[in-house]
Amino acid sequence: METTNSSRFPLVVIVGGGFGGLEVAKALANEPVDVLMLDKHNYHTFQPLLYQVATGSLEAGSIAFSLRKNFDNQKNFRFRVAEVTKINPEKNSIDSSIGEIKYDYLVIATGSTTNFFDNESIEYHAMPMKSVPEALNLRYMILQHLEEAVLKNTPDEREPYLSFVLVGAGPTGVELAGALAELRNNILCKDYPELKKEEMKVYLADFMPRVLGAMSEEASAAAKGFLTKMGVEVMLNAKVENYDGEVITFEGGKTIRSKNVIWSAGVMGNILEGIDKDIIQRGNRIKTDSICRVEGISNVFAIGDVAAMITKDTPKGHPGVAQVAIQMGKATGENILHIIKGEATKPFKYFDKGSLATIGRNKAVADLGKVKFQGFFAWVIWMFVHLISLLGFRNKAIVFVSWVGNYLTYNGGSRLIIRKFVKDDPLHEAELVTHED
Amino acid sequence: METTNSSRFPLVVIVGGGFGGLEVAKALANEPVDVLMLDKHNYHTFQPLLYQVATGSLEAGSIAFSLRKNFDNQKNFRFRVAEVTKINPEKNSIDSSIGEIKYDYLVIATGSTTNFFDNESIEYHAMPMKSVPEALNLRYMILQHLEEAVLKNTPDEREPYLSFVLVGAGPTGVELAGALAELRNNILCKDYPELKKEEMKVYLADFMPRVLGAMSEEASAAAKGFLTKMGVEVMLNAKVENYDGEVITFEGGKTIRSKNVIWSAGVMGNILEGIDKDIIQRGNRIKTDSICRVEGISNVFAIGDVAAMITKDTPKGHPGVAQVAIQMGKATGENILHIIKGEATKPFKYFDKGSLATIGRNKAVADLGKVKFQGFFAWVIWMFVHLISLLGFRNKAIVFVSWVGNYLTYNGGSRLIIRKFVKDDPLHEAELVTHED
Repeated sequence: METTNSSRFPLVVIVGGGFGGLEVAKALANEPVDVLMLDKHNYHTFQPLLYQVATGSLEAGSIAFSLRKNFDNQKNFRFRVAEVTKINPEKNSIDSSIGEIKYDYLVIATGSTTNFFDNESIEYHAMPMKSVPEALNLRYMILQHLEEAVLKNTPDEREPYLSFVLVGAGPTGVELAGALAELRNNILCKDYPELKKEEMKVYLADFMPRVLGAMSEEASAAAKGFLTKMGVEVMLNAKVENYDGEVITFEGGKTIRSKNVIWSAGVMGNILEGIDKDIIQRGNRIKTDSICRVEGISNVFAIGDVAAMITKDTPKGHPGVAQVAIQMGKATGENILHIIKGEATKPFKYFDKGSLATIGRNKAVADLGKVKFQGFFAWVIWMFVHLISLLGFRNKAIVFVSWVGNYLTYNGGSRLIIRKFVKDDPLHEAELVTHED
Repeated sequence: METTNSSRFPLVVIVGGGFGGLEVAKALANEPVDVLMLDKHNYHTFQPLLYQVATGSLEAGSIAFSLRKNFDNQKNFRFRVAEVTKINPEKNSIDSSIGEIKYDYLVIATGSTTNFFDNESIEYHAMPMKSVPEALNLRYMILQHLEEAVLKNTPDEREPYLSFVLVGAGPTGVELAGALAELRNNILCKDYPELKKEEMKVYLADFMPRVLGAMSEEASAAAKGFLTKMGVEVMLNAKVENYDGEVITFEGGKTIRSKNVIWSAGVMGNILEGIDKDIIQRGNRIKTDSICRVEGISNVFAIGDVAAMITKDTPKGHPGVAQVAIQMGKATGENILHIIKGEATKPFKYFDKGSLATIGRNKAVADLGKVKFQGFFAWVIWMFVHLISLLGFRNKAIVFVSWVGNYLTYNGGSRLIIRKFVKDDPLHEAELVTHED
């Protein structure tokens, strides 16, 4: 591909089309810069609703949005499907699957991936859920295991297929546990008259003493209450020791036979090769100054989950949530313009809008500053906030129609097995790498 | 799996959950029989809209519907994901991926697959589009080739990526040609500002002298006119000689450089092993009598695309269209009940409701008996008929919302590359085969 910039404007390269990358590009619209966004997928993923793709309530196309289409009207924007592997700060370039690309300014917005804490057996056998292909793999695995359970003759043979263990009780684990419990309570016996509701078990395990550890005590307590009432077995102070694909073992010896272990117990930044090891912080995050600038490289920025802005006020950086990425993206776009125009930059200040998590039908928890509430009203707010945050009118409309349908019928979603799930499938996390034939 | 029938009712096994299979099962509801449906997919595919999945206007989940969910309320219905390979008429059993299954009555409703007329090179390199996985492969291939075209430096290098050749000008070829022409005319330059509309070419080739050969002369002429106006190059009396993945060659020597050849030039029945060769008719179809009974086997029926009902009135059988399958399915379900109850069976009589094909926005052709019309009104009818025929209220609602969005914006669909398309991917046509581990 062409690696030179034909216009006379500085070229801002953005690696990653997640919440942060999108905001950088938007902030640069109609300004005297050229923007090139690179992502290994040609779409933006609305990660907060991935769990509904995994359980079949929503289609992938409703929560993902074409990056090209999103910027159809932004004249200074170009996009390429590419995987970026390395940064060469001394040459102002990056290495990618489509060749070397030069930049004037670079924004690393590569987000995070699942952290298995170096346990290879867990990494191989447990299912992550950080991308659309991963959520679809999970869906197909769950549905295939229900189909296989139907073919078994005894409860003992069915047990591993019908036990679901969610490790990590953050929002993802809690939301998935709730969705799986609803699948069991409302759908299982209708779709699979051969199976008994009681035989399907949903476990939510965390090594911490409460669920939703980043939220308030009230939220944690309410969420645990909702989950328990829905039939989820909540296991706290439960540290996973190993998982071999058949049996998950906890510290202290407890074991569960399960072919369905879903791992959302930790994330780590998707860093690039070529970043100085000394500035890599806990969780594989890149250390930045107060304007998201990577320490020691004046024209490279890192934002969102991959960034650790270590300042006096934020000694550990910011939480890995969408709002941080969004706000950092906007601020970074604006600061790049300030730098180009010779103006003073503005230090980043995070405005915490609060946290929401849903457990299921009519059940959510909300911490909005000092205002904390749980139940139906929190659930309505959760839906409203997620609906308006989705990219594209069509996606909003389709998710709305789907949710209304799910609510009215207790039996939403299509639950289709489009692809066979195979553990060793090289397309597990299928990545498009455009290439010469 | 259990192969015996625990109730005292006769067991009707239906192989295939397409248009025909669905109707058989429905006709048997609340009757003194047990129904077991087998399909290699866990969903019904609404094939007439597959082309919109291929071009990204609709999501797969909107045109496919869970077979289990569809029969949630039918008490005598069971379903298994299974691939059926062989029939053993002497044992009243079939062999399948989940073991041998006994039947009292068997309905073969396995539909048809793409016919490449024994040309292995075409079969390997050209893309079929008869199933959801195939339509998705096609979508990902098209989008990847657009991404690759962006990376090329000259029109000559871009040509094979931007040339689309549709072989077979039946409804599928015509509808795909129209959809690709609309993609070029309305979307290409918005999404890919680097590409020129003029560089993308859409060819529709058929060895017959007109498009939509099964419809009226008026319909053919109008469809050809619409296509030409939209910029499709219609090639008639054009017989394909070979395709090697890079160049498609026609009889007479004409060649087109294209990496995108889509083959809809013929179908053949999906027959099972164990069917007597003498009763296999042209197009790999199974010869039946006037009540869809397979010649020589009194308790086995074949319906839809896989059946050739050879009678005095229908010396060549029936056309391979959804209406035939639907009507045969209903009639066969009813005749099985007649047989069980010792009543007289009723010979099948096809009621031809007419044909519709759409070319694009405001453009369709309709042959309804003696009434033939083309244009906007035909297009409205086409949409209405397809919308009400979709299974499930949610699918109807989502397709409606999608179509309204596409119509208003000229830029519908999500066009996401969720899986990398790889020609040698073993999951090309991914089939779920449940199995012992």
